[in-house]
Amino acid sequence: MKLQLATWPDIRDYLETCDAILIPIGSTEQHGPTGLVGTDAICPEHIAGGMAEQGVLVAPTLSIGMAQHHLAFPGSITLRPTTLMAVIRDVVTSLASQGFRRFLFFNGHGGNIATVQAAFADIYADASLAGGESGLVLELFNWFMGPRMGEISKELFGDAEGWHATPSEISLTWDAYPNAQRQATLEPKRAPKGPIRDAHDYRQRFADGRIGSEPDLASAETGARLYQAGLEDAMEVWRKLLEN
Amino acid sequence: MKLQLATWPDIRDYLETCDAILIPIGSTEQHGPTGLVGTDAICPEHIAGGMAEQGVLVAPTLSIGMAQHHLAFPGSITLRPTTLMAVIRDVVTSLASQGFRRFLFFNGHGGNIATVQAAFADIYADASLAGGESGLVLELFNWFMGPRMGEISKELFGDAEGWHATPSEISLTWDAYPNAQRQATLEPKRAPKGPIRDAHDYRQRFADGRIGSEPDLASAETGARLYQAGLEDAMEVWRKLLEN
Amino acid sequence: MKLQLATWPDIRDYLETCDAILIPIGSTEQHGPTGLVGTDAICPEHIAGGMAEQGVLVAPTLSIGMAQHHLAFPGSITLRPTTLMAVIRDVVTSLASQGFRRFLFFNGHGGNIATVQAAFADIYADASLAGGESGLVLELFNWFMGPRMGEISKELFGDAEGWHATPSEISLTWDAYPNAQRQATLEPKRAPKGPIRDAHDYRQRFADGRIGSEPDLASAETGARLYQAGLEDAMEVWRKLLEN
Amino acid sequence: MKLQLATWPDIRDYLETCDAILIPIGSTEQHGPTGLVGTDAICPEHIAGGMAEQGVLVAPTLSIGMAQHHLAFPGSITLRPTTLMAVIRDVVTSLASQGFRRFLFFNGHGGNIATVQAAFADIYADASLAGGESGLVLELFNWFMGPRMGEISKELFGDAEGWHATPSEISLTWDAYPNAQRQATLEPKRAPKGPIRDAHDYRQRFADGRIGSEPDLASAETGARLYQAGLEDAMEVWRKLLEN
Amino acid sequence: MKLQLATWPDIRDYLETCDAILIPIGSTEQHGPTGLVGTDAICPEHIAGGMAEQGVLVAPTLSIGMAQHHLAFPGSITLRPTTLMAVIRDVVTSLASQGFRRFLFFNGHGGNIATVQAAFADIYADASLAGGESGLVLELFNWFMGPRMGEISKELFGDAEGWHATPSEISLTWDAYPNAQRQATLEPKRAPKGPIRDAHDYRQRFADGRIGSEPDLASAETGARLYQAGLEDAMEVWRKLLEN
Amino acid sequence: MKLQLATWPDIRDYLETCDAILIPIGSTEQHGPTGLVGTDAICPEHIAGGMAEQGVLVAPTLSIGMAQHHLAFPGSITLRPTTLMAVIRDVVTSLASQGFRRFLFFNGHGGNIATVQAAFADIYADASLAGGESGLVLELFNWFMGPRMGEISKELFGDAEGWHATPSEISLTWDAYPNAQRQATLEPKRAPKGPIRDAHDYRQRFADGRIGSEPDLASAETGARLYQAGLEDAMEVWRKLLEN
Ligand code: NI
Ligand code: NI
Ligand code: NI
Ligand code: NI
Ligand code: NI
Ligand code: NI
Repeated sequence: MKLQLATWPDIRDYLETCDAILIPIGSTEQHGPTGLVGTDAICPEHIAGGMAEQGVLVAPTLSIGMAQHHLAFPGSITLRPTTLMAVIRDVVTSLASQGFRRFLFFNGHGGNIATVQAAFADIYADASLAGGESGLVLELFNWFMGPRMGEISKELFGDAEGWHATPSEISLTWDAYPNAQRQATLEPKRAPKGPIRDAHDYRQRFADGRIGSEPDLASAETGARLYQAGLEDAMEVWRKLLEN
Repeated sequence: MKLQLATWPDIRDYLETCDAILIPIGSTEQHGPTGLVGTDAICPEHIAGGMAEQGVLVAPTLSIGMAQHHLAFPGSITLRPTTLMAVIRDVVTSLASQGFRRFLFFNGHGGNIATVQAAFADIYADASLAGGESGLVLELFNWFMGPRMGEISKELFGDAEGWHATPSEISLTWDAYPNAQRQATLEPKRAPKGPIRDAHDYRQRFADGRIGSEPDLASAETGARLYQAGLEDAMEVWRKLLEN
Repeated sequence: MKLQLATWPDIRDYLETCDAILIPIGSTEQHGPTGLVGTDAICPEHIAGGMAEQGVLVAPTLSIGMAQHHLAFPGSITLRPTTLMAVIRDVVTSLASQGFRRFLFFNGHGGNIATVQAAFADIYADASLAGGESGLVLELFNWFMGPRMGEISKELFGDAEGWHATPSEISLTWDAYPNAQRQATLEPKRAPKGPIRDAHDYRQRFADGRIGSEPDLASAETGARLYQAGLEDAMEVWRKLLEN
Repeated sequence: MKLQLATWPDIRDYLETCDAILIPIGSTEQHGPTGLVGTDAICPEHIAGGMAEQGVLVAPTLSIGMAQHHLAFPGSITLRPTTLMAVIRDVVTSLASQGFRRFLFFNGHGGNIATVQAAFADIYADASLAGGESGLVLELFNWFMGPRMGEISKELFGDAEGWHATPSEISLTWDAYPNAQRQATLEPKRAPKGPIRDAHDYRQRFADGRIGSEPDLASAETGARLYQAGLEDAMEVWRKLLEN
Repeated sequence: MKLQLATWPDIRDYLETCDAILIPIGSTEQHGPTGLVGTDAICPEHIAGGMAEQGVLVAPTLSIGMAQHHLAFPGSITLRPTTLMAVIRDVVTSLASQGFRRFLFFNGHGGNIATVQAAFADIYADASLAGGESGLVLELFNWFMGPRMGEISKELFGDAEGWHATPSEISLTWDAYPNAQRQATLEPKRAPKGPIRDAHDYRQRFADGRIGSEPDLASAETGARLYQAGLEDAMEVWRKLLEN
Repeated sequence: MKLQLATWPDIRDYLETCDAILIPIGSTEQHGPTGLVGTDAICPEHIAGGMAEQGVLVAPTLSIGMAQHHLAFPGSITLRPTTLMAVIRDVVTSLASQGFRRFLFFNGHGGNIATVQAAFADIYADASLAGGESGLVLELFNWFMGPRMGEISKELFGDAEGWHATPSEISLTWDAYPNAQRQATLEPKRAPKGPIRDAHDYRQRFADGRIGSEPDLASAETGARLYQAGLEDAMEVWRKLLEN
């Protein structure tokens, strides 16, 4: 069930048997010459769509993440870490006031990880500093780190997967939006790797936006396969969350 | 062009001839017994989809708005006004660093208006307090306040339009998601009106979430008509923005 | 009763029968070549003085408001929206800790409206996010939008009232401070209108600070009449607040 | 010259020869059984009125200060230290954008001192952390610590001056508002002294609000004498500010 | 060279040839029945002492970290993530204003990692959002993740190392403070593992504070060996930082 | 007992008979040509070491304080006042959640005083604004203002003590770190005095960093004497804290 397409009585009923919710979180940032700006939001949203069909309650995607390092490429948008932490706090607190207790943030962007974890600590700290008990379970799952997903990526792309604008994520967006497929000559074929600092430094190091990847290996067929793997990976995490 | 489905070179090229962007902003909140939780995000996003086809650059929808008064109904989520202000600041600042100058926030939720305007003032204040010049044009347009839209609402619903969970907005969501149509017996037929305070007070006054409306007057056909009117209203505002 | 001229036992006694308080809020900003910098604070403070004589408890005027767009004119002072929100939060919370429940912010500045409303939402949100009940009634009344006031302005000034540095507000300050009357040749006679953005843009558009007004139509006599109208308008709002 | 009663061209002209401004700052808090809630704002505002007549540019009084410890007495209002710091920052930054460089905060409340000094450091820190130069001179003068003032207090009241709700400050308010004179039997005649912590603790220690004082020694005649002394003390500080 | 034991002319001279600084960062939190509250600060400080002798400029240790989950054990102190981020921002900005460009945060606490990385992103974001260039290199190195260190831990403790109150960290503190050695009967011998949430939940899961470890395997001799390994690991990271 | 060298069961036991803790707080800032950057942290930490031996529970030193005015001298680090306030709030709140009620901040830096007091008010304000009771006792003691200390300084140095980089504080650091003794020719022998503003202004006025002092009068012998005096001064304050 997608929260946006439900009514409030639907959610009232849902809460009678389940206090968990899935919150897709992505980013709006350059993904190289051929990757979509929305890649990191589209990927978890796409898989979450499948989860919603299996009864998982799915919140609207938080489409804008922490992407300060991409800002030198037009179309990239960032929230400051402190802003994203405030967003996560407000979302969790809103739903907790209604009885939700377990929150699975389903993430599509490596750059969000530290900030999301800091946000969880900040929320827990309210209870901890008050000598109280939050009752909350806040978890993060990155779709690109699931075991089934990893196996396919390793098998098909090996080192050509790279770190940013990877053939895996681009394939997955093409499964979601077949019309969005793009090709371009990539120079060099394999993008360089290196540290991530500010946006100026990033653009100096990674001229076309990619890090270590060969996104021209992407295909819609692989995307369909990755979708299935990602759905199974994520459903496994969701079921585990419901158990504890 | 939808930002999420574009590449960064697409946006680089767009910026050569246009420095304006449309940012749909909505809310995730109860809309009465039959209205969708996502109504206020779906409506501007739906119309913005049509605008994108006419060449308008459309950012991802800010789906969560300022909806503190709805929190007593399950599924409603709010950002605090200060959080939403920080989000708007970061979005504008990110894009301004790349050359965007004109921003049209295309809004679907009355409860966002004050906060969005305060956010604009906060951004302008950076330049004003520094004795400088921002060069920015920040505008807000509420789809439900366009002239063509208003005429249809007046003609079809009159006072039954009400203020929240209106037949107009519900019709429009049914144009976007025909499968989401719901019916329920509404008691009373016409919801009461009153002031908006905190969530507890709201639920006391407005037992099923509606304010002053008769959403059972909604229909997908009306939704299609409203979509067309809303698209024309919004394109008119957009063109005016490009002129000055 | 003016809070500043009362003792704490006076307020303790007042609270036994009434939990409402009036808080004048204005701005410190240019008002054209002849208008006083304090116009927007003086107007509500002046009328509030009359209300205090009729038994209304009147807090000290919040003289500095949100006026970032006026900063390019010497003498203008702004609080950032976030600062003004914090001020309003602290004032309300202080008084609420003593039993006050109903707060009427009596406003003299259009530029404050969005920020004051966002501040109200921010205060209500504390209770809403906690799943609790604030018990607070936070209202805003702009003296210049009262019905009796509007009638006089329409009758005497029509379109020459304009939006900023209006003959009405200037007349009212002259009723309060007869010695402050100023005259100057205004060029053009009727100031231009336009959008409000940052301070640099404002000064480009509105060279002498006025927007759309002809303040040379002001007179102390009109001020006396407006004072009486404003007092009746505001007392009506106050009485309504006490009733609910 | 009072800023509130000036026009912006007046301030433009003033800035041609002087870049200094006086900002009265007080508090809104209980002052014992007979003292006015506004005492700490009234005192510096009253003296500043005399300074304005001698050509000093006087900003509107910041009437609400840091008074958290008084909140258990009805009518007291506090700004949090962080809020008051934001207010001071915005006021200084606004005026600095127009050419003001020297700011004399003229204070009537001991509880403001630490926060005002922290605010000054916070403003200076902007330049210091940027490796730059603010050019600002931020000073604080407490009217009750001037030498002429101290001599009179010592002569007339000695130890009966106490720390809060002092006969000096109450006398001074009676010079400003002769009708506000109040008498009450004070029990004990001399209030106790002690540390200042939170509002609950304060009310436990200081049952009627006074600390160490005998405010029944106040008189309007003494107020007139203190006014003269305070005016001379403050003008001396102002002249010194203009010199460096 | 330890910053605290240097004079400012020493640092001025240092900056002529090197723009890098080491900043130890730890935590103040329970470390099981026998481990020191200061363990996570003592470990990096101890190794940094050796680095200082080899010419590395070492800032004072940030002894209090993000440890909200430990608060249910007396003596534990946390900074909120947002507070720690502000501390890191101020430290970096202060030193950057003097010419420092490369910062190595030398960390002793797993719970700090996400917050430190979010802080780095927040600092970089200043430049990125301004379309500028920070010139900064911000790096984090956890002493317990160095290769030489890991080898010894694996060899001596294997799975008994666990996650919190590990024999490695306790050994290292005993090398620094031989008198601080403690023994206690640990029940169970091997502590349980599990997720980390708020402080209440933590204490429920991990009754004596340890996670997965057998700290009674610690010894001062092992501490001496770990010190040497840690020093070599850290010097390697430092040298690499100086190269790029 | 030093908190860093204790275990959590030690602190649990301590809390059974005492709810007080000492928190040394200093600064990291230039102290003239011969004084150590860590002087203001070393001094209270050194004396606190003696207190710990007499059973006082001593938290880790907060080594970085509010020192914005020193930033133009390499090696100086500041926290913004708002950051330091957040640190103090988190430290107090953490320990209060475990039963601590009395906090003695033992300070070595004049520039911290206003900010620490503002932080105390901010913490008390939580309870005061909630109409509640914090139960907290927050006190500040500056080692350099103790009576025994003052007598020695007056006897040995008189006016040559000055305000910053004083012979007293430098002597005390030499008692703690005998190897850190430095000599330099000071020009002029007695440093000038003046107001403290931003870092640029400070360096203009005080070329070598000293204010009004002759630190070449310092000696390790005097340091030993001052240590003894400081220890007695501080123990007296501590005992008084335990009594009330
Ligand atoms: Ni990606
Ligand atoms: Ni709606
Ligand atoms: Ni006005
Ligand atoms: Ni007073
Ligand atoms: Ni540890
Ligand atoms: Ni010092």
